[in-house]
Amino acid sequence: MSLLIICGSSRNDGNTETLAKAAASFYPGDVEWMHLRNHRIHQIVDQRHEPRGFDPVDDDHRALIEQMLRADAVIFATPVYWYGMSGHMKTFIDRWSQRLREPDLKFKERLKNKPAYVIICGGEQVMLKGLPLILQFRLIFEFVDMDFKNYFIGQAKRPGDILKDTEQLSKLKDFFNRK
Amino acid sequence: MSLLIICGSSRNDGNTETLAKAAASFYPGDVEWMHLRNHRIHQIVDQRHEPRGFDPVDDDHRALIEQMLRADAVIFATPVYWYGMSGHMKTFIDRWSQRLREPDLKFKERLKNKPAYVIICGGEQVMLKGLPLILQFRLIFEFVDMDFKNYFIGQAKRPGDILKDTEQLSKLKDFFNRK
Amino acid sequence: MSLLIICGSSRNDGNTETLAKAAASFYPGDVEWMHLRNHRIHQIVDQRHEPRGFDPVDDDHRALIEQMLRADAVIFATPVYWYGMSGHMKTFIDRWSQRLREPDLKFKERLKNKPAYVIICGGEQVMLKGLPLILQFRLIFEFVDMDFKNYFIGQAKRPGDILKDTEQLSKLKDFFNRK
Amino acid sequence: MSLLIICGSSRNDGNTETLAKAAASFYPGDVEWMHLRNHRIHQIVDQRHEPRGFDPVDDDHRALIEQMLRADAVIFATPVYWYGMSGHMKTFIDRWSQRLREPDLKFKERLKNKPAYVIICGGEQVMLKGLPLILQFRLIFEFVDMDFKNYFIGQAKRPGDILKDTEQLSKLKDFFNRK
Repeated sequence: MSLLIICGSSRNDGNTETLAKAAASFYPGDVEWMHLRNHRIHQIVDQRHEPRGFDPVDDDHRALIEQMLRADAVIFATPVYWYGMSGHMKTFIDRWSQRLREPDLKFKERLKNKPAYVIICGGEQVMLKGLPLILQFRLIFEFVDMDFKNYFIGQAKRPGDILKDTEQLSKLKDFFNRK
Repeated sequence: MSLLIICGSSRNDGNTETLAKAAASFYPGDVEWMHLRNHRIHQIVDQRHEPRGFDPVDDDHRALIEQMLRADAVIFATPVYWYGMSGHMKTFIDRWSQRLREPDLKFKERLKNKPAYVIICGGEQVMLKGLPLILQFRLIFEFVDMDFKNYFIGQAKRPGDILKDTEQLSKLKDFFNRK
Repeated sequence: MSLLIICGSSRNDGNTETLAKAAASFYPGDVEWMHLRNHRIHQIVDQRHEPRGFDPVDDDHRALIEQMLRADAVIFATPVYWYGMSGHMKTFIDRWSQRLREPDLKFKERLKNKPAYVIICGGEQVMLKGLPLILQFRLIFEFVDMDFKNYFIGQAKRPGDILKDTEQLSKLKDFFNRK
Repeated sequence: MSLLIICGSSRNDGNTETLAKAAASFYPGDVEWMHLRNHRIHQIVDQRHEPRGFDPVDDDHRALIEQMLRADAVIFATPVYWYGMSGHMKTFIDRWSQRLREPDLKFKERLKNKPAYVIICGGEQVMLKGLPLILQFRLIFEFVDMDFKNYFIGQAKRPGDILKDTEQLSKLKDFFNRK
C-alpha cells in the first residue's frame, strides 16, 4: 500500500512539508514524495477543442502523472498562496486536462475512488480564509471521482513554526482514520 | 481614465477574452490588455523569510506589475480551469509576494482602493462551481485593499460559444455601473 | 405547467417579493405564491432517531409541503438576513426532515429532478456576501435531487429600491432560459 | 470570566450539546448555557425601515440577548440542519436586527471584540458540507465585530455517537488556545 505526497511548496522544509511529513508518519504503508518545484511543468495551452487535440509537451508532467496514477492514495500538500494552492500545484493540475485526452493513460479510470487527502498551510485566519481552497479541492475530486477522505488546515507564520506546535502536529494522529 | 484587462487565458480569442472585450466596450475610457500567456513569468520561490529577501528574477513580471499599478482600474479575466483561476494567472499573482517587499514599487499603496473587476468563464454549472474562485478573489482584493466592484460568471463550452450568446453578452452592459 | 414561489420575506411587498414577481412575469405557465410569514410553521423537534419517529405537529407545514410537491417548478425567494435565508424559510426547510419520514408523501421521489430556482436579495456587497447562501441551497437541492436551474442575487437597501432599478429587473428576462 | 454556550439544538443531549460540553470542560472560567429550544422566540417582522421602528415583541428574546451581552465569550453551538444553522438559532439571530435599533442595549458596542466560537455537528461529509455555514458565521461576526476565535466541525450520525468518539472529543482540548 503506497501513499504519494504531491507537494506544491516552493521552498525546502517549509511548514507544509513538515505537516505532510508528520501526517505521513501515521500512514500504514510506503510513502513517496513528489516535490513539484523540482520538476519542469509547463503551463497548459488549452487545445481541448482543437481537432487534433493537444500537442506533445516536452517536460516532466506525464511521468509525474504516471507516478500519481500508480499510488494507492494521494496527499495534495500545498502552502496557501493568495488564498489558493501554489502556482506550482495549479500548473500541475491544469495540465490534467491534457492527460484526460490520452486514452492509453486511463487517467480518470485510475483515479476513480482513489483516496485523496489535502494538507494546506497558511497564515493568519487560514482556518477561515483557506476554506474556498478546500471547496475547490472538493470540486476537483468530484470531477475525477477521487474519494476526498480528509483535509487539514495548518497555521504557521515563519519557517519552522509548525515544528514547535505540538498541538497542531498531534491532531494529525488520526488523519487517515476518518470515517 | 484607463482600464487594464489582465487575461489569464491560455489560447487566443477564447470565450473569456470575448467576454472581457464585450465588457470593455462599455468602459468609458482607454482599455489596455495584458495577455499573461505571452509573457515569461516564473513560479515563485518563497523567500519571504530569508534574511536578504527575494533574489532578483529574470522575467517579465516586474514590468507587468508596473503596468498594473499604473492602471486606474483592473479586470482579472480568467477561464475557470479546475475550479480555479488559470495557472498563468495564479503564477502571476503568487509573485505579488515578492513585489510586496520592494519598497520602491509601493505595491500596496498604489493598489489601495483601485477598482477591481473579475470575469471568469467556465463550463457546466459554473454559476455554482465558480463560486469558490469568486470568494478567493474577494480575499485577494481584501488583502491588497482593492475595491472589488463587480464580477461576471460566463458559461460556455466550445470556443466561440459566447459570441452567439447575446443574452449573456447583454448582461455586461452595466458591468461598470454597479453601485 | 405551474411555478410555485415560496417566499420567506417577513414583510409585504419587499424587494425580494418584487424580484420574484418580476421573474415570474417571464414564466410561461401558471404562478402560485406561498408566503411563509402568513402560515403557522413550528420549529423542528428532531426525532429522526426516536423509535416511533416524529410526533404529529399541529400547524400548516404538511399542507404547504403538499403544495410544493404538486408544483412543476419552485422558486425559493428569500431576503438575505444575517447572510442566510430568513428564519421563516429555514424553519420551513428544517421540517423537511420530518416529511422525509412520511412514506405516503413520497417527498424525495416527487422532488427528484424538479427544477429549483433561488432569488435572494440583500444589501451592501450581497453579490459576495450572499455566496455562502447560494452554496447552501446547492447542497440542499443535491440532497433532495432537485435540479438547481438558476439563481439571482438582488441588491437593494430600502423598501422599493428594486422597483426603480430597471437594470437589475431586466436581467431577470431570461431567468428561466438558462441552459 | 464567563462563557455562554448558545445551543440551537432541538433535542436534549444531542451530539452538538455533547461537543459543546466537552469544549466547555476546557474553559478556564464559569460556563452558562442557553438552550434556545426552551425559549419563546418569534420570527422577525422586518420593520427596519418603518418610521417608528420595530414594534415590541412579547417573547424571551430581549432577555436572552441581555444574557449574551453580559458574557465574556460566546459559543454558538448548532446541529447542521440542511447545511445551515438550526431554525432555532437562525430565528434567534434574525431578531438581532431589531436589537440593533434599541439604543439603550448598546448591542454592537458590547459585542465588539467579544470572542466568538462555533461548534457545529452534522452527518456525512460535514467537514465539507458544513463549510458554507462556517463562512456565514464569519460574515455575521464581521458585521458585529466579534472576534471569531475558533470553530469545530463534529461528525456524528446517531444520538450518542460523539460520546464514543474519543478522537474527536480529544481535539477540543486546545479549543480556547488557538492563536
